[in-house]
Amino acid sequence: MSKKISGRLTLPAELNFIDETKDLLSRWGADAIRDSDGTDLDDELMDLGVTNYSKYFVARGDNEFALSHMDEAQQLFVMSDYHTAKGTSLTFEFMTGFLDEQIVPDFNHDPKEWWQVYNRTTGELVDVSNWSINKEDLTVTIENTTPFHEYTLNILTYMIWDPTQMYNHITNDWGDKPHEIPFDVRGPKANQHMKDKLRAWLEDNPKTDVVRFTTFYYHFTLFFNDKRKEKFVDWFGYGSSVSPRALEAFEKEYGYKLYAEDFIHAGSYNSTFKPPTKEYLDYLDFTQRFVTQEAKELVDIVHEYNKEAIMFLGDNWIGTEPYGKYFENIGIDAVVGSVGGGLTMRLISDIPHVKYTEGRFLPYFFPDTFYEGNDPTIEGVENWITARRAIMRSPLTRIGYGGYPSLAYKFPEFVDFVSETADEFREIISNIEHKETYSRAKVAILNSWGKLRTWQAFMVAHALHYKQIYSYLGVLESLSGLDVDVEFISFDDLKDGVPSDIDVIINAGDAHTAFSGGDAWHDEKLVATLRKWVYEGGGFIGIGEPSAYEKGGRFFRLADVLGIDKELGFTLSTDKYFFDLKEDHFITQDLKDTFTFGEQINNTYALNEDVEILAMDNENITLSAHTYGKGRGIYMMGLPYSHENTRILSRSIFYSMQKEAEFNKFTSTNIHTELNVYPESKKVALLNNTNEAQTTVVYDGAGNTTDVQLKPAEIKWGELDEENSTIRF
Amino acid sequence: MSKKISGRLTLPAELNFIDETKDLLSRWGADAIRDSDGTDLDDELMDLGVTNYSKYFVARGDNEFALSHMDEAQQLFVMSDYHTAKGTSLTFEFMTGFLDEQIVPDFNHDPKEWWQVYNRTTGELVDVSNWSINKEDLTVTIENTTPFHEYTLNILTYMIWDPTQMYNHITNDWGDKPHEIPFDVRGPKANQHMKDKLRAWLEDNPKTDVVRFTTFYYHFTLFFNDKRKEKFVDWFGYGSSVSPRALEAFEKEYGYKLYAEDFIHAGSYNSTFKPPTKEYLDYLDFTQRFVTQEAKELVDIVHEYNKEAIMFLGDNWIGTEPYGKYFENIGIDAVVGSVGGGLTMRLISDIPHVKYTEGRFLPYFFPDTFYEGNDPTIEGVENWITARRAIMRSPLTRIGYGGYPSLAYKFPEFVDFVSETADEFREIISNIEHKETYSRAKVAILNSWGKLRTWQAFMVAHALHYKQIYSYLGVLESLSGLDVDVEFISFDDLKDGVPSDIDVIINAGDAHTAFSGGDAWHDEKLVATLRKWVYEGGGFIGIGEPSAYEKGGRFFRLADVLGIDKELGFTLSTDKYFFDLKEDHFITQDLKDTFTFGEQINNTYALNEDVEILAMDNENITLSAHTYGKGRGIYMMGLPYSHENTRILSRSIFYSMQKEAEFNKFTSTNIHTELNVYPESKKVALLNNTNEAQTTVVYDGAGNTTDVQLKPAEIKWGELDEENSTIRF
Repeated sequence: MSKKISGRLTLPAELNFIDETKDLLSRWGADAIRDSDGTDLDDELMDLGVTNYSKYFVARGDNEFALSHMDEAQQLFVMSDYHTAKGTSLTFEFMTGFLDEQIVPDFNHDPKEWWQVYNRTTGELVDVSNWSINKEDLTVTIENTTPFHEYTLNILTYMIWDPTQMYNHITNDWGDKPHEIPFDVRGPKANQHMKDKLRAWLEDNPKTDVVRFTTFYYHFTLFFNDKRKEKFVDWFGYGSSVSPRALEAFEKEYGYKLYAEDFIHAGSYNSTFKPPTKEYLDYLDFTQRFVTQEAKELVDIVHEYNKEAIMFLGDNWIGTEPYGKYFENIGIDAVVGSVGGGLTMRLISDIPHVKYTEGRFLPYFFPDTFYEGNDPTIEGVENWITARRAIMRSPLTRIGYGGYPSLAYKFPEFVDFVSETADEFREIISNIEHKETYSRAKVAILNSWGKLRTWQAFMVAHALHYKQIYSYLGVLESLSGLDVDVEFISFDDLKDGVPSDIDVIINAGDAHTAFSGGDAWHDEKLVATLRKWVYEGGGFIGIGEPSAYEKGGRFFRLADVLGIDKELGFTLSTDKYFFDLKEDHFITQDLKDTFTFGEQINNTYALNEDVEILAMDNENITLSAHTYGKGRGIYMMGLPYSHENTRILSRSIFYSMQKEAEFNKFTSTNIHTELNVYPESKKVALLNNTNEAQTTVVYDGAGNTTDVQLKPAEIKWGELDEENSTIRF
Repeated sequence: MSKKISGRLTLPAELNFIDETKDLLSRWGADAIRDSDGTDLDDELMDLGVTNYSKYFVARGDNEFALSHMDEAQQLFVMSDYHTAKGTSLTFEFMTGFLDEQIVPDFNHDPKEWWQVYNRTTGELVDVSNWSINKEDLTVTIENTTPFHEYTLNILTYMIWDPTQMYNHITNDWGDKPHEIPFDVRGPKANQHMKDKLRAWLEDNPKTDVVRFTTFYYHFTLFFNDKRKEKFVDWFGYGSSVSPRALEAFEKEYGYKLYAEDFIHAGSYNSTFKPPTKEYLDYLDFTQRFVTQEAKELVDIVHEYNKEAIMFLGDNWIGTEPYGKYFENIGIDAVVGSVGGGLTMRLISDIPHVKYTEGRFLPYFFPDTFYEGNDPTIEGVENWITARRAIMRSPLTRIGYGGYPSLAYKFPEFVDFVSETADEFREIISNIEHKETYSRAKVAILNSWGKLRTWQAFMVAHALHYKQIYSYLGVLESLSGLDVDVEFISFDDLKDGVPSDIDVIINAGDAHTAFSGGDAWHDEKLVATLRKWVYEGGGFIGIGEPSAYEKGGRFFRLADVLGIDKELGFTLSTDKYFFDLKEDHFITQDLKDTFTFGEQINNTYALNEDVEILAMDNENITLSAHTYGKGRGIYMMGLPYSHENTRILSRSIFYSMQKEAEFNKFTSTNIHTELNVYPESKKVALLNNTNEAQTTVVYDGAGNTTDVQLKPAEIKWGELDEENSTIRF
């Protein structure tokens, strides 16, 4: 691969490493350097002639201000442990289990107004006259309790340690380094201060070209326990954005009051898995408007100084919502985020209303990977080829790395790998940026959140693995690089029918969650809309417990479409006869062995003999297809990410539309390869998604085949003829 | 083993087999012979000098009557298939999928009064003005349908083929043998006829000593599909007991009307897995009173003729309910039923208000087992030792076999085996019948049904295996031979607190079923009652999804007692830290390898570090214990039957009561052995529950140990001293 162009790469900087930094800048074609959480750029680094990114913390890292304005510290509603009354009175310590270094009760505001006691056995709120708080020993005493009912206290707290700094501090054992106290820019003094401070900082940092906001105001909900370990993490949680100030402003605007329980929900804390309440959606809208408006003010200041503003997607990102209605208003120039694979890549690269996006690739140059005897290139290649297939669909503008370059520098092979990757990335971008990408279908992911949580469904803590989600996240990871358009839609979006541009709808998730839909499926209009749409030719792919809502003798509301339901025990007396596997089928044509479905959803079964059963496990249907009018319903128990499952999904998309005859156009037969077509630039790209050599047969748009050999991890570019049909490599 | 006594054994008779029958009577010590479905006793057999049992069908097997009184044929409500309206009108054939040889629509009664159309998408009843029946082509036409809603028709049918005869007929390919039409003794003519016919039969059969009713009036719900295969089977179903006559009588008595849907429930047909409605419970009570009253009249007639009356537990047993309130009224002398193991043995032997009980053992003398090259003794021994441990707790009065003795006679080893078994049985009975059996605890199974379904929880079709039930049936099978008293209680039985004689409560089952309890757990009084009871020293064992009812942030209402809950997805953001297995624990002391829990209940987890995690699988807790006051909560994912799991349960019972220190009294250490103690008869019996030699250590009541060797399948009897403490073998 020839080094045609340079740029599009950001290097993490390190002090006292200047010559090697110059070497890396040159070898990797980097055009920017950046500092990190814990490292700064010195003059020598800033004078290297490339673009300088400087991190900037808006609402933390200024304890001088914070300590003198503790009434404007950030706040958080938390719920105490459950306590069982043994008699008619109950006293317990309510801060047990929380990290007192991070959160302390707010006694500045009247607990009787902002705190709540719940009887969790009945679900009833306990009247304030029945409880009292002892501020000295941090106990609550509840009177007139019902023996052997469980009670909890909802507590308004101050957050006196920024969660990200806390995480870094504890993880890296920073000892007596001060805890950064986050302040709430809804506080009038904090609000003024953040602007003054930014201006002063900009004055002091003339060499900074790009201000990297990390991020704005409110951290996603993250609190630790009394053993200094994580107690709760929700990457989407708005819990740390609350305050009496915010809730009073909300009440003034919306005409009704929000209470602690609106945020706590018996300990679910409005996880994205909980179908959102109207109150919570109102609060999200309210907070987004505030955050984006305030962020815009900061960005405007940055622009005044002729610098660019970029935001990190993470940490204090709450309320910015890149896929929300108000993000555009911020006027931010770019977004940067961490790339763990295709899905997290798309989460960044699809963000609208920015000039550019930057993805930070793995591995971080940290000692856990860069140690003698380990080969960091292996993780680097894996991360790159996993993300690359998604880049082919929706490119990032820039890439970058994190950590200590001095560590990476000790691994010459890795340095070479990054050089090649950077070149490859630049070649991709030069070929496809801002050019139309050919899509073979438009797929919509249907859940309670829709567009707001684009590429964010099923996530708990960004890219972290959970047993309960990997069977679903695989769907998004597969889609991130598939040759289809992807849209995230909510049940509300179907109020007037299915939008005409959608070919296939996927509903995936565990029963009752926001991703399956829960009570949304009560609505018979929704049910009828989808049935009619499939009947008329739409494709419906249900994964896990799709449309689950027990009614009318069935658990899956679209059981008739899927031909599959889940036995809850009530119809065990009805004989189930349909177990014959269809061995040879369009969907499973490339399946080598058994279908890998992830976690078991027990007791799925076929309703009738028309169901094409494609895979079973433990007597359960794990993969099936069912014709419903001109469309089809496809059932999958789960779809953990793999090349094989990506192909299963791709074929299911075509089969669900009853367009399997069109599958062998612009496709590559080897499941470890993928073909991308760019009609506008008259190019095609054939990806080898493995680090081994592959051979494949490529079908062009007319159905002609070509045998192709691919080197490990290779992209082979080809030319598309004038009629956008035949391919020449 | 010396042949001390004879008797207590019923031999199936066979024509033209008289000498061998005499031989078997002598060798097996049989004191009775019986005919079968399809075979009769001739004079020669009846003159053998033993007790003669003759089968008797009350409401079938008399087509001369039935055909001339088709308006008194038995009836059944069935639900059509689901049909999706594509427009505003829908027509479908409503008898599709049913076996027209078995059921035909009832056009004698107005469909508009007795049938119902349901919109299953909304759950709403469709007004009768919107539909019409075409009797010619058996279609229903529904007008004003909502497009893409699903509709079903509830149909009142006549049952024109007795389900048992149908099963035998189809299975044995009886060709043009007439189909026996069951008649409904609520019909005035049928009612008179059954009595007249019984008297006439008694007159004609003077040599019969015991009339075996097979059974009375109504068959459990069993209907076949159009391919002559089983479509629906519920051994507890009252579906075939309905008729306009019955429902009108019900309305008159109860003041409200029952509708088809009260029996159909969107296709669940009031399976015992569905928590019973008030309406259905009323109907059960109503039908039991009718059946027991009518059965009493027949039994009285039998008694008039100085014969005994015995009933078969199965077939047309509906409404007799041996564990119900009215069974005693029948005055039946005995019950006979099929024994598949300990659980089904106890189902018979525990029946109150009868003079004796008889169990029919496996294998049946049929060619599927008695063929050259097969050893039927293997199944015989297995069946015997599985049932025997339950007999030691609650003895049958008699045993018997079924099938063709001429087949068994060809297997001398099997003939010897039965001789020995019969002797062993008689020895057991002579030692323990009507004698107090020592119990180490009283265990209650808690569900929606309670006493009525004693030993009948989790069953679908008597002893048949279903994937969804074996993890729970194992609990009952284990208990059937354990040295504890067992009682089945309902949630209503706890209205005034837990009865004082109960030591341990088991709640087992899938979420929302009648066995877990479903909506019963909404009741906070129930929840508090159980918590208090455990706190004060009760033992609670939750299996599967015990107390499952989502409320207050938890799924298991007794999560605080168990220390275990099931993650539904809403609290994924809360870190779960408790995974440390407790290797050495009282409960798992005899566990060789991993705990076998049966079907997976996904995402169970420990709430806190106080939970003793004893076994895990796929990150789920499968076995755990949690101290709650003076009692404990034990969680098990499931408990398929095995000797190992029986021991796990036994130890869990003691551990849950916090009485583990008392475990090693009157017990045998080897899990394949069990010790039974009979203080009244000053005897103990040590069972070898395997067909291999075993060694064990027996603890007496004072905690002294004795090493004991046991031959394959041996019972070793020992003597208990005067103070009921030490044991001498």
